[in-house]
Amino acid sequence: MSKKLTSRAEDYSKWYNELVVKADMAENSAVRGCMVIKPYGYAIWEKMQAELDRMFKETGHQNAYFPLLIPKSLFEAEEKNAEGFAKECAVVTHYRLQNDPDNPGKLRVDPEAKLEEELVVRPTSEAIIWNTYKGWIQSYRDLPLLINQWANVVRWEMRTRLFLRTSEFLWQEGHTAHETKAEALKETQTMNNVYATFAENFMAIPVIQGVKTESERFAGAIDTYCIEALMQDGKALQAGTSHFLGQNFAKAFDVKFTNKEGKQEYVWATSWGVSTRLMGALIMTHSDDLGLVLPPNLAPNQVVIVPIYKTDEQFEEITSVVNGIMKDLRAKHITVKFDNRTTHRPGAKFAQHELQGVPLRIAIGPKDLENGTVELARRDTLTKEVVSLNTLTDKVEGLMTEIQDDLYNKALDYRDSHITEVDTFEEFKAVIDGKGGFISAHWDGTIETEDKIKEVTKATIRCIPLDAKEENGKCIFSGSVSNRRVLFAKAY
Amino acid sequence: MSKKLTSRAEDYSKWYNELVVKADMAENSAVRGCMVIKPYGYAIWEKMQAELDRMFKETGHQNAYFPLLIPKSLFEAEEKNAEGFAKECAVVTHYRLQNDPDNPGKLRVDPEAKLEEELVVRPTSEAIIWNTYKGWIQSYRDLPLLINQWANVVRWEMRTRLFLRTSEFLWQEGHTAHETKAEALKETQTMNNVYATFAENFMAIPVIQGVKTESERFAGAIDTYCIEALMQDGKALQAGTSHFLGQNFAKAFDVKFTNKEGKQEYVWATSWGVSTRLMGALIMTHSDDLGLVLPPNLAPNQVVIVPIYKTDEQFEEITSVVNGIMKDLRAKHITVKFDNRTTHRPGAKFAQHELQGVPLRIAIGPKDLENGTVELARRDTLTKEVVSLNTLTDKVEGLMTEIQDDLYNKALDYRDSHITEVDTFEEFKAVIDGKGGFISAHWDGTIETEDKIKEVTKATIRCIPLDAKEENGKCIFSGSVSNRRVLFAKAY
Repeated sequence: MSKKLTSRAEDYSKWYNELVVKADMAENSAVRGCMVIKPYGYAIWEKMQAELDRMFKETGHQNAYFPLLIPKSLFEAEEKNAEGFAKECAVVTHYRLQNDPDNPGKLRVDPEAKLEEELVVRPTSEAIIWNTYKGWIQSYRDLPLLINQWANVVRWEMRTRLFLRTSEFLWQEGHTAHETKAEALKETQTMNNVYATFAENFMAIPVIQGVKTESERFAGAIDTYCIEALMQDGKALQAGTSHFLGQNFAKAFDVKFTNKEGKQEYVWATSWGVSTRLMGALIMTHSDDLGLVLPPNLAPNQVVIVPIYKTDEQFEEITSVVNGIMKDLRAKHITVKFDNRTTHRPGAKFAQHELQGVPLRIAIGPKDLENGTVELARRDTLTKEVVSLNTLTDKVEGLMTEIQDDLYNKALDYRDSHITEVDTFEEFKAVIDGKGGFISAHWDGTIETEDKIKEVTKATIRCIPLDAKEENGKCIFSGSVSNRRVLFAKAY
Repeated sequence: MSKKLTSRAEDYSKWYNELVVKADMAENSAVRGCMVIKPYGYAIWEKMQAELDRMFKETGHQNAYFPLLIPKSLFEAEEKNAEGFAKECAVVTHYRLQNDPDNPGKLRVDPEAKLEEELVVRPTSEAIIWNTYKGWIQSYRDLPLLINQWANVVRWEMRTRLFLRTSEFLWQEGHTAHETKAEALKETQTMNNVYATFAENFMAIPVIQGVKTESERFAGAIDTYCIEALMQDGKALQAGTSHFLGQNFAKAFDVKFTNKEGKQEYVWATSWGVSTRLMGALIMTHSDDLGLVLPPNLAPNQVVIVPIYKTDEQFEEITSVVNGIMKDLRAKHITVKFDNRTTHRPGAKFAQHELQGVPLRIAIGPKDLENGTVELARRDTLTKEVVSLNTLTDKVEGLMTEIQDDLYNKALDYRDSHITEVDTFEEFKAVIDGKGGFISAHWDGTIETEDKIKEVTKATIRCIPLDAKEENGKCIFSGSVSNRRVLFAKAY
């Protein structure tokens, strides 16, 4: 905990890895590519969950739970989905271990306990859920079906990074069923909008809403909507996706309903998800060389109070003042922690709370007792001021909103100053190799061009922004006609 | 939904299975032994989770998340634990599927994607957690470590029943680390107490706290504390367990700490858990031949309002009155739903809410509009009364407590009248074959006797109650001396 972080300028990637571990967010586990989410990191994830869950319920969704293990025959039913996930899935083949006769004290797979049909650990749940929906949907009266699941999923990733890409991660996955194409499309857009609102208002992360190109689409989707954020190193991060699945899964699992006219039709589907990847986005949007910077809405402790004292008497007097402060702050629904550990000095406490991104720190010592004041320090701006106890509660309450807004605006300024319009491939390469960020450019709409640009620059099309205007132009790569700019970037 | 349930008297087991499915709690899935928890069932589980989580945090615990997949070498490290779970664990052996050359359109395990080391889908997480704790604990300053995890686990059960025994289930598992034996023992007891309080105050299920005999202990524990409940059919159900693990896992994973005297010691451990099995206990404690009966504390909707009308005008008038009622009830934090579906008749709605155990039903029709009244029906007693709108809110608020208490007392009466003291094996067999329930009897303390009694009667020792008094007696089976009665029962 005591050693300084590598600076972002020196090595952004190293800074990130060190920060995640040192701020007690997560760490690598003994299981290849799987992380342990530590209590402090998990407390932030819980805050995200609570707010998202509230937003899902407010938009009419209910939670449910479906099996972790998917029989291979269901997994392979929707061909494109299966093709997309088969390459990276964990497969259960046996249901028992036994003592290994060749290695006393060791276990081995019992060859007689081989499953008749292999089970895939869910990488996503469309298959098992649509197989279940078949039994739930008969008539238009059963629709819409608006369900969400909080769960763990496993995708056998070859190169992993804490939160950003792990073999197991936590997420929510919404799976909805509708009577009409229009209604399903509207749901897809509504949920993408919920994600954008959550990212912006709650995480203080500005995002661009858009649609993915064919090659970046979810396996099995007709259209994938997304929210794209920009990290401090100029790389983009896909923070959430919402898929319009058309009738693909309904056809694969034969899910039909009797419509109002008495005719049988296939059901229309959507799915949408965000994951613990959001933790990575949070870190890389706001944090600095001293550690994490948390928006007040997501901070497990919004305020921490550190006592500075030499005698037991001073400590008692400070404690009594602090109790009053805590009572007042809690009455305003502000979460506050009194760090009265006797095992650590104030300097070590300051460093820890800085590293862990607590939005506000209050320090109170003997001089403050005399003057009826405290020292108030903002984590985001690193500014300090002396505040009278009389005005402290109002001041802190005001700062909760102010810090939240400032973080958003700072990230927005950065993002907006890193969207560059280019009209030639030379310019494109110069920006990618230079300042980075999003590049707004014309593209001819073909996968070939997309692939070639990626090959040369490592940049991909992040999305076709929903608010993209019609504009005549020429593809920066092929020179073919284009009537809309798309956003390119290197991405996590 | 429309067909009547099998009665409990006719076939208790069938009644249970039908109720779980028809009340929309859960259903069997396409995956052997794994259930789908449906939205209504999941909403009840969410209420349990929220309350338990609050109680855990109030007792100083934090949540975290550990990997689903456990490398075989870690899994086998604590010998007894491994032995206990090896027989029923799902094993991941491969990380990829590929197109099956012999079956176009089908997938098969890619033989080249075999894992070097097999991974066990967690049946419980002591192994992976204690392997992690090794890195977290160096000094007494790092203790106690009080962590809980909400997770799914897999145990390959041969005979499964919805909620009661499923191959995958949801649970929470607490894993704590302590400086001393006394502190760990106290934690074990504290958490068993938390479970008892939760079961009694929240679920309205009376429980007996006790300690398991050696043969019923958790694999790897020194002592297993438990809460035992009695179901309506006279069978017991273990509703939660809290394990004192001694230094077994610390030794298996070499987790030592420097104590206050500067010496190295092994850490002391506990683990404790409750699962979706509690849903089964809830159902089998309170429900009746008409369906589920929910205590108000766990009901997703505490009150449902059904309008009875013939004309649109009546419906509008009723709606306006109902809006007022809902506003008043919600101000008292009572959850209420207006069932204004036009697709169902009042009778069908009544039957559904009865089946789903909504504690109070309010019906309001044209006559009520004239008289300023509603009809109020209690689910637990099936009694109805006409209540004036003026007194409705207070009445409903009072009934929330009254129903909760009545359900508890009813279950307590049943339980207490089904604890039979016996002093001979003849009496023992007569009670087991007759009224069932708990049998309080002397036992000689040997596994042999326990096994033989089980063989003959199918009854097991549920626990040695914490409040068992010293009493000289003779073992009902062997006649050897005993100084304390234990509780036997047939059990789920």
